[in-house]
Amino acid sequence: MKFTGKNVQISPSAIIGDNVRIGDNTVIYDNVVIGDGSVISNNCIIGEPTADYYTSESHQNAKTVIGKNALIRSHAIIYEDVHIGDGFQTGHRVTIREKSVIGNHCGIGTNCDLQGYLTIGDHCHFHSEVHICQFSAIGNFVFIYPGVILANDKHPPTEQVKGPTIGNFTQIGIQSSIIGNIRVGENCFIGAASVLTKDFEDYSFILGSPAKRKGDVRELKSDAGEPLYPWKNRFSRGMPWQD
Amino acid sequence: MKFTGKNVQISPSAIIGDNVRIGDNTVIYDNVVIGDGSVISNNCIIGEPTADYYTSESHQNAKTVIGKNALIRSHAIIYEDVHIGDGFQTGHRVTIREKSVIGNHCGIGTNCDLQGYLTIGDHCHFHSEVHICQFSAIGNFVFIYPGVILANDKHPPTEQVKGPTIGNFTQIGIQSSIIGNIRVGENCFIGAASVLTKDFEDYSFILGSPAKRKGDVRELKSDAGEPLYPWKNRFSRGMPWQD
Amino acid sequence: MKFTGKNVQISPSAIIGDNVRIGDNTVIYDNVVIGDGSVISNNCIIGEPTADYYTSESHQNAKTVIGKNALIRSHAIIYEDVHIGDGFQTGHRVTIREKSVIGNHCGIGTNCDLQGYLTIGDHCHFHSEVHICQFSAIGNFVFIYPGVILANDKHPPTEQVKGPTIGNFTQIGIQSSIIGNIRVGENCFIGAASVLTKDFEDYSFILGSPAKRKGDVRELKSDAGEPLYPWKNRFSRGMPWQD
Repeated sequence: MKFTGKNVQISPSAIIGDNVRIGDNTVIYDNVVIGDGSVISNNCIIGEPTADYYTSESHQNAKTVIGKNALIRSHAIIYEDVHIGDGFQTGHRVTIREKSVIGNHCGIGTNCDLQGYLTIGDHCHFHSEVHICQFSAIGNFVFIYPGVILANDKHPPTEQVKGPTIGNFTQIGIQSSIIGNIRVGENCFIGAASVLTKDFEDYSFILGSPAKRKGDVRELKSDAGEPLYPWKNRFSRGMPWQD
Repeated sequence: MKFTGKNVQISPSAIIGDNVRIGDNTVIYDNVVIGDGSVISNNCIIGEPTADYYTSESHQNAKTVIGKNALIRSHAIIYEDVHIGDGFQTGHRVTIREKSVIGNHCGIGTNCDLQGYLTIGDHCHFHSEVHICQFSAIGNFVFIYPGVILANDKHPPTEQVKGPTIGNFTQIGIQSSIIGNIRVGENCFIGAASVLTKDFEDYSFILGSPAKRKGDVRELKSDAGEPLYPWKNRFSRGMPWQD
Repeated sequence: MKFTGKNVQISPSAIIGDNVRIGDNTVIYDNVVIGDGSVISNNCIIGEPTADYYTSESHQNAKTVIGKNALIRSHAIIYEDVHIGDGFQTGHRVTIREKSVIGNHCGIGTNCDLQGYLTIGDHCHFHSEVHICQFSAIGNFVFIYPGVILANDKHPPTEQVKGPTIGNFTQIGIQSSIIGNIRVGENCFIGAASVLTKDFEDYSFILGSPAKRKGDVRELKSDAGEPLYPWKNRFSRGMPWQD
């Protein structure tokens, strides 16, 4: 009995693709484009205007694009001037602020908070309760686990500063903090509750507070003695190399 | 002026008990059963369908049961195929995914995120912002404090794996991480911001990152020299041994 | 196209100031006062009743006051018996429970959870995902960053106990835990992921788990050799000393 159209509000300037379904109590504001086959579930706000809207009489919503075959679960808030590729999926209550650019086939979990002015590549998956600061740059195939926070300043407060850069295939364990204009390389694994405030090279196994390079991820073995990283060799669900 | 029935939507197949009150903008989907005397507040979704719903034409919501005298506060999302006992209370914006089984007299705080495929016993209380991974098993009288995360893999990503098991009466301090198929015994106390990746025996006082057994909880004393644990001997509010 | 008045519900006993705008699906309960020029965005609940409401036939909502020129973003829940000064701003999904007193020109970020029975001074800014326990007392010009938790007991569970006191101008870094009836002085800087369980004097640079005083903040220098704290000397955006 979902998608009855109850209390749905869609701007006349929104462009809604074919076979799009929109849940109860959802609002789609001006200049939003939703790709074919997408689902926007209940109680969402798509095209939320930025602060300027509240102070300027002449505010015009910037174009906001959600690609084809998205599944955006309930209570999501996606701002104007966000551009998202195809195959996007979210959990509930996701917040994605303005000037976020997200690639294809990404997933953003429940309660994630993306602060805008950031880029995320393709095939990234953020689990629940991940916070990404402004001016972050995240590569492709980056997985981030619950409670991780990326922050853009080591000695707050400051004016806006650049956030972290995360290399392709890197995995960031739960509750970790990644702070400042640092670069974490490709194919790294960051253990739980680590606190990073400096650069790390590719293939680093990173752990601790303050975080240190504990070794090369290619040396990590499972209990059965199998190599764990690069994880591309042992995990394929939803990835392009899945059969 | 609550419970005016404004913009409430209830499936014809839902079974609503006597003296149930339902808040504005709440949706109750197919095959939900709500026990007598329960309150479902505003903007909730009860019986949220699983992902299969979006891809299958023939999806039928599994039965979802909320027991008697529940108080579910606003913006909660409870999936289909969740079974909850009597006297359940929540804060706001709770998420409880499918195949969660929760006992009697439990409380789940604001912004908690229960990922489903998990069991929780009786008289458990989770404070705000607690994240429980899939395939966790939590005993009776377990209290979990804000910002705690249970996660089911030490070396992600992997296919679905078993989460932690938490023994009866154990208390988990704020911001702690409990990771993998480990067993934390009964009557343990885990100090704030601990990171657990191995088993701990009953009555352990657990602290640190990585967490270590610092002693027996029965040796911990208050500033006044009174024993603190087992806490059952000094705390009774809402517990069966009250009065 | 915001503020069309769609599905808005306002109690007859609420007092709404001049030039107030209220978003879709928002509910304003009894005895709420909203100051001139304020914006309450979509899907908010203002004047949410306390638990007593659900068990007592005679519950009367206490007066709730939001000052002039507030901007409260969507999905906020503000309880009855909250008093907030002028120039208040929030992110999305903020929760502010009963008996919270908040001064002028404060900002509370997305997903923040203020548990009530607390005081916050003027010009405080909490970034996203901050949790403040009951019986906390926060001074003026305190900035708290994402994922910080203030908790009121070191050895839970206990009956209600006093929470932390935070001095004017103190900055609390991401993911930190501040636990118990402790006092953090004025002009302190707490580094990321610190765990505080004891008092700290004014001007302390605090770091670690358990947190220690690492020095005087006045000795901290930027990469360019400039003093960082007191931060009042180098940061003015939105502060009374701007211009």
